[in-house]
Amino acid sequence: MKKTLFTCLFSLSVLASYAINPAEGTPASTNIPEAVYPCVDANSRATFKLHAPEAKDVKVDICGKKYDMSKDAEGNWMATTDPLVKGFHYYFLLVDGVQVNDPASETFFGCGRQASGIEIPEDAQTAAYYTFNKDVAHGQVRECKYYSATEGGERRCFVYTPAEYEKNPDAKYPVLYLQHGMGEDERGWHTQGMMANILDNQIAEGKCVPMVVVMDYGNCGYIFGSRPGETRDQFGATFTQVMLNDLIPYIENTFRVKTDRDNRAMAGLSWGGHETLEITMHNLDKFAHIGSFSGALFFLADGLENAYNGVFNDAPGFNSKVKTLFFGMGSEEGFGSDKISDALTKAGINHKYYESEGTHHEWLTWRRCLNQFLPLIFK
Amino acid sequence: MKKTLFTCLFSLSVLASYAINPAEGTPASTNIPEAVYPCVDANSRATFKLHAPEAKDVKVDICGKKYDMSKDAEGNWMATTDPLVKGFHYYFLLVDGVQVNDPASETFFGCGRQASGIEIPEDAQTAAYYTFNKDVAHGQVRECKYYSATEGGERRCFVYTPAEYEKNPDAKYPVLYLQHGMGEDERGWHTQGMMANILDNQIAEGKCVPMVVVMDYGNCGYIFGSRPGETRDQFGATFTQVMLNDLIPYIENTFRVKTDRDNRAMAGLSWGGHETLEITMHNLDKFAHIGSFSGALFFLADGLENAYNGVFNDAPGFNSKVKTLFFGMGSEEGFGSDKISDALTKAGINHKYYESEGTHHEWLTWRRCLNQFLPLIFK
Repeated sequence: MKKTLFTCLFSLSVLASYAINPAEGTPASTNIPEAVYPCVDANSRATFKLHAPEAKDVKVDICGKKYDMSKDAEGNWMATTDPLVKGFHYYFLLVDGVQVNDPASETFFGCGRQASGIEIPEDAQTAAYYTFNKDVAHGQVRECKYYSATEGGERRCFVYTPAEYEKNPDAKYPVLYLQHGMGEDERGWHTQGMMANILDNQIAEGKCVPMVVVMDYGNCGYIFGSRPGETRDQFGATFTQVMLNDLIPYIENTFRVKTDRDNRAMAGLSWGGHETLEITMHNLDKFAHIGSFSGALFFLADGLENAYNGVFNDAPGFNSKVKTLFFGMGSEEGFGSDKISDALTKAGINHKYYESEGTHHEWLTWRRCLNQFLPLIFK
Repeated sequence: MKKTLFTCLFSLSVLASYAINPAEGTPASTNIPEAVYPCVDANSRATFKLHAPEAKDVKVDICGKKYDMSKDAEGNWMATTDPLVKGFHYYFLLVDGVQVNDPASETFFGCGRQASGIEIPEDAQTAAYYTFNKDVAHGQVRECKYYSATEGGERRCFVYTPAEYEKNPDAKYPVLYLQHGMGEDERGWHTQGMMANILDNQIAEGKCVPMVVVMDYGNCGYIFGSRPGETRDQFGATFTQVMLNDLIPYIENTFRVKTDRDNRAMAGLSWGGHETLEITMHNLDKFAHIGSFSGALFFLADGLENAYNGVFNDAPGFNSKVKTLFFGMGSEEGFGSDKISDALTKAGINHKYYESEGTHHEWLTWRRCLNQFLPLIFK
């Protein structure tokens, strides 16, 4: 018996209104096609709208604050926030206490789940370094599946290749391994971090050398970043063997890349910064360039001299091996990279410290950190 | 003033329980990492769970039916469905009447928004053609940004390159342009359709020739597939000029592809089938291989002789030009491809008709259609 079955359950709530009040600003770039809400005004205030006539209570939860939404006669709930920090923010709606996605937003893997996200725009000139520029050549971000013997299963990584990769079939490129944070995954740097635009723009201007960038899953994307019962030292620790035994060989067998330590870098944000230090400091024979962006780093607690098997105790030896050591963070987040920098300076360890003015533990900090880090490496 | 601000609003509701009742089956492959619900039992029944202590009413809406969920003392809502058709289904939860995503599911762009999705597994042998096989070589799916002069802005397409593409720097490949359906976008064929696995497996077995596959956005991903005020003939019609003037030149300038009509194919599902016929039938100088999978096709209504400027009136001429003409659909959906096939047979137009046994207007139908279509083209 034939019947017509539409699997798609059309949502009347998504685009409750195509009209926007000009005072509320312009649609967010993070919206799905044709959605006019959420929108952002000139003062970085965001206005959200949800059609939910039967709900009793709706809030929007963004940047650490919950805003009550109010309902109109048609059952549309709306709220306008305070001015928000510029950059990308995860957010959720709370419908009768349940944390849900905004149907008008794209989704972004963060917070251990697919979350809504909103871009609060900077002015065009400030944002130029991470903005698509039609006048520069564009690299590609390739989704690659590979088999991990360590895990006994399929894994996915994303690999950025510079625009010229296609045109120079004999050229080989240095490789940066770039890690996301806790509760995020291998998509983060590309979708939230705008890494392809940053690379395209820097390469076009000659600021950084053309390179391949590999983004894999750091095994710390679960809720709270950990499996139940895991202690802090175990969060994401299983990624180390995957990276060394499966990922690096896969990349070096599949892409035209240089394979010596001077042409291998690793960097990561937040827990990915933690993973970067754990992996590189114990494998300095494999990595010459190291970056931590708001890294979740605790090694000062036991004394710098005890960190990573005493790697910092021989400053001249360390300085001759490690070509780039970079620590960055946002001025508003207090993640401790400044204290690490002070301790390393006292110990005579060469490094760069960068503080992103006015930003929190968020993606704008990490876009800026990447933009600072790239010109330093492979030179 | 420094302060620590965690932007990520951790959700306690995602993984309300790590324990699963074995009678309820195994976690769906479409879940986010570590989520054990939704799960699917041996009879293709799915069990859903949501932690929502304050909600008054929660339902799960899947395959055209709404199931009431019941609440336990801890505030967890659960429901088990009837046996579901195998394959991929979009679904939503209804929380006090609001259509929301299941936080435990990956998201999939369909229904004009990011939707939840669940894979109801077939047996391993039946599913082998679209399953990752560690023993075959894997192609890549590349996300590419390009500038569209037609639209005056940035666009995104995904491009599958076969595994051997990297190893044969002088080889050129035929190109299949492959379109999603209404309310979906350029991600659909890869994430819901498993196209990379299907290509990898067929190429490894020599069933289809190695080819490049291009997936772009058909400008019909809005709610209801259309902008307000658009008439049916306008849905997605703006994609035609983008494809002919921007996309094809971009692909042919960027990838090593063959550029003659014998090596250019186009296929699409549902509204993408409609777009495929609209574009190819008016441009037979550019396309020699054409596929419609559950195509939204209305051309019989005005008589076959009037379709596409009378292209079917000269059967010998048409047959000599069009190397592949394929119509497929699911046996349970009633999308009319069978009637089109009958009319074309009467008119002497060479074509293939395929009916997917037991499937609806859903992705399993389209995976099967692609699997049938690929061996026919470029030969």
